Amino acid sequence: MTKSEISVKMSDLKELYIEQLQDLYSAETQLIEALPKMAEAASSSELKRGFVSHLAQTRTQAQRLEQILGELNEKPGGKTCKAMQGLVAEGDEMIKEKAVAAVKDAGLIAAAQRVEHYEIAGYGTVKTYAKILGMVDQAALLQTTEDEEKTTDKTLSTLADTINLEAASD
Amino acid sequence: MTKSEISVKMSDLKELYIEQLQDLYSAETQLIEALPKMAEAASSSELKRGFVSHLAQTRTQAQRLEQILGELNEKPGGKTCKAMQGLVAEGDEMIKEKAVAAVKDAGLIAAAQRVEHYEIAGYGTVKTYAKILGMVDQAALLQTTEDEEKTTDKTLSTLADTINLEAASD
Repeated sequence: MTKSEISVKMSDLKELYIEQLQDLYSAETQLIEALPKMAEAASSSELKRGFVSHLAQTRTQAQRLEQILGELNEKPGGKTCKAMQGLVAEGDEMIKEKAVAAVKDAGLIAAAQRVEHYEIAGYGTVKTYAKILGMVDQAALLQTTEDEEKTTDKTLSTLADTINLEAASD
Repeated sequence: MTKSEISVKMSDLKELYIEQLQDLYSAETQLIEALPKMAEAASSSELKRGFVSHLAQTRTQAQRLEQILGELNEKPGGKTCKAMQGLVAEGDEMIKEKAVAAVKDAGLIAAAQRVEHYEIAGYGTVKTYAKILGMVDQAALLQTTEDEEKTTDKTLSTLADTINLEAASD
């Protein structure tokens, strides 16, 4: 969350809003890379399908950020979300983990839910900024994404109900 | 979330539970290092107090993990939570950001809420595992921490209500 390449002082909420949108865009693009690997590593066909369908949704969410940043005359690129780098690294470790199928699936869900919560926090923040800045349509778009992330988190919890039990009885 | 130093196959939920507890312990200890710097960087006295009081709470949360891991005959150390490394790095960037006071405070809150959501997801996962594994007391302890993280997240949202408006009018 820096723009050290430009050494001006960040003077208002709009600049922070743009920076946070770029951070989330970086997060989404990293996730677009990571989700196919998580789908590949999953054993449960439901979990596999969940990751694949969330990939399509993530692409749409990235497009929404492109649209919003375009409206603000800003580019989406140029930032790297370090938190998502760490989250993806944790997911990668779980992908490579030597574990029986249900345990690995449970671990993949745990990693994915951390990602969802990161995004819920991030979109909650930018949606609030958009409202304060009077950008009603952008706030609505960001709310849509936030709601989708919350739904994905709940879907993962439901999947975990079954998979965790399998993992416990392995 | 790996234990690549031990090349055994993770065979049940209890092993994943231990690994996730160790991951959270690493996250909490990193946060104990980071929170004083965030308090130092904050301008709002309420936000400063919030970070300081969350530091005390974080120490207690780390002690709960030590207790639980002790009961499981496991050590708390030896793992590094990469996601928290990324989250802390983002907080550091905001600390160093050239920004007017209210904008920096808004950015610090944004970073802190991402941290809280990471922990909400993490504790939600281990609490669920503890219940499935029949560890009722541990589940209750973990629930206490999860509730505290949710309360901290809400407190930060309330603080943001005022600080974001200040940041918008700067």
